[in-house]
Amino acid sequence: MSRIPYEEIYDLLLRVLLKAGFEPEPARLSARLFVDTSRDGVYSHGVNRFPRFIEMIRRGGVIDIHARPNLTAGYGALEQWDGMRGPGNLNAYASMDRAIKISCQHGIGCVALMNTNHWMRGGSYGWQAAEAGGIGICWTNTMPNLPPWGATEPRLGNNPLVIAVPRSEGHIVLDMAMSQFSYGTLELYRMRGDRLPVAGGFDLNSELTCDPGAIEASARPLPIGYWKGSGLALMLDLLATLLSGGLSTHEIPADSFRETALSQVFIACDLSLVGRSRNAEQVANEIIASIQGAKPSHDGNVRYPGERTLEIRKKNLEQGIPIEPQIWQQLQAT
Amino acid sequence: MSRIPYEEIYDLLLRVLLKAGFEPEPARLSARLFVDTSRDGVYSHGVNRFPRFIEMIRRGGVIDIHARPNLTAGYGALEQWDGMRGPGNLNAYASMDRAIKISCQHGIGCVALMNTNHWMRGGSYGWQAAEAGGIGICWTNTMPNLPPWGATEPRLGNNPLVIAVPRSEGHIVLDMAMSQFSYGTLELYRMRGDRLPVAGGFDLNSELTCDPGAIEASARPLPIGYWKGSGLALMLDLLATLLSGGLSTHEIPADSFRETALSQVFIACDLSLVGRSRNAEQVANEIIASIQGAKPSHDGNVRYPGERTLEIRKKNLEQGIPIEPQIWQQLQAT
Repeated sequence: MSRIPYEEIYDLLLRVLLKAGFEPEPARLSARLFVDTSRDGVYSHGVNRFPRFIEMIRRGGVIDIHARPNLTAGYGALEQWDGMRGPGNLNAYASMDRAIKISCQHGIGCVALMNTNHWMRGGSYGWQAAEAGGIGICWTNTMPNLPPWGATEPRLGNNPLVIAVPRSEGHIVLDMAMSQFSYGTLELYRMRGDRLPVAGGFDLNSELTCDPGAIEASARPLPIGYWKGSGLALMLDLLATLLSGGLSTHEIPADSFRETALSQVFIACDLSLVGRSRNAEQVANEIIASIQGAKPSHDGNVRYPGERTLEIRKKNLEQGIPIEPQIWQQLQAT
Repeated sequence: MSRIPYEEIYDLLLRVLLKAGFEPEPARLSARLFVDTSRDGVYSHGVNRFPRFIEMIRRGGVIDIHARPNLTAGYGALEQWDGMRGPGNLNAYASMDRAIKISCQHGIGCVALMNTNHWMRGGSYGWQAAEAGGIGICWTNTMPNLPPWGATEPRLGNNPLVIAVPRSEGHIVLDMAMSQFSYGTLELYRMRGDRLPVAGGFDLNSELTCDPGAIEASARPLPIGYWKGSGLALMLDLLATLLSGGLSTHEIPADSFRETALSQVFIACDLSLVGRSRNAEQVANEIIASIQGAKPSHDGNVRYPGERTLEIRKKNLEQGIPIEPQIWQQLQAT
């Protein structure tokens, strides 16, 4: 693994995107979102994922790089947009941006987006809302990749949910899928020869297991909280589908190269309005202090969602961002 | 356990509430919410909980039975209300009702409620939104009763989250706390001499355990999905506190008889508006059919959230609602 400066990676990604036919402005935003994701330590959905994104564009049929989201209906604080199968990260960024603007006018703003593509790191749009000083909530449906509780075949998506709260000492950003571990994480553990810290799914004998390879083999990862995460994944798909008028998980091809026409929801709340009665900054700091002050079960403090991100971001900006040499060579040759 | 007809229980609860000083209209709504909860099988927060509710009123200092929620700030689609420490179920019902009304005007409506009391069954307000034909989302913070991931002492609330989608064949209503099992459920398993179906917390040796009594002894129930549910519980408290301007879990007394000044959020979306592009009823039916059609891991179909509720409701309306004889005698003597 080599560490490469942020700007150097950004420049290369931008060049590749322009070569692929992107207009300059969307190319800059897309490059930034990909590099920010690796900078923040979410390597699976950052630069390491970029070659696959380019390959999907090259193959055609899924991502329309010239498409822009299109307002289809507006009801005041809730708007429905058609993503026109444009690049998922650009559509998501535009949708959260629009939700923030609505929230400034109505206190809360909701954009329901249909017909979009994989948004890469969902957390990006939480950080985006928090950077704008607001609360951000968003989620996406996905292709079927998670068996409902009580079933052996994937019919639910892992439907990542993002919730972000701004704070000048460090935004609080939760970015979690409804599966206990992603397939990417299972693969990482397997390649290292490690067992999972807790059961992550069923093996082929329908027994709960910490063996990542056994879960890959059965295709039965576990929803968080068993029946609870299964129910929550279902509800997130229902909400995204109904609010956007788009497709549900069961209508999306179960093939990561053909996964498209996703449905997503973006909600923002304007803290400069609602935060008037109590000092929002202080309230958030006190809540974080209350969990950090809890007696730890092991060494070290309790972490809040987003805390580790800031540490990794700092290190990666100082020392360069870790990039797989193979990915880097591949990109340079593009 | 005896089964008693709905109307007979309702009449008794109404009489007790009127005797406790309630005005007739709120008394009728409160009685209905308590009996509906037992009718739907959530016995812990229905009639079995009612004597404690009355006892808390009798002791004074927590619930003001004459208080009505009070609008403190409105920003269009988002309103802040002060619950004035009124009865939690009446405040919650009024808040979801108001969120529904806002949603009819703005597409989405959000009521953030501070200074309220325990809402009893959270699912009630999901069913309420669904009965009105809309999507309902609500959550509450609670007193500290759940250790954050990595800590041994309770600093988070189990912060129940409710999501409801209307459907004429049966509303889909998820009502889940962020702990894998409630203390009520742990007690039920222990009294039956049963072990939990999956690990529900840590024992005094910091080992994960299926022994309900060991978890009661350690006061270390497990968040759903370990670190994930811990993060989600934290975010729900942050959102409720910041949006309402009310108190956070760490500011609420950790004593179920003194638990008060809770913060809650109620969101409604008007499906008659957003459901225009696709037939919402059909979309929801197809999504439910897709999970019910999944190959089951055991006998029987995959269930959707709310499905069992309808079965229990039907049986309890036909055969009477199961009531602890001791509770019934106590109520009759009130």
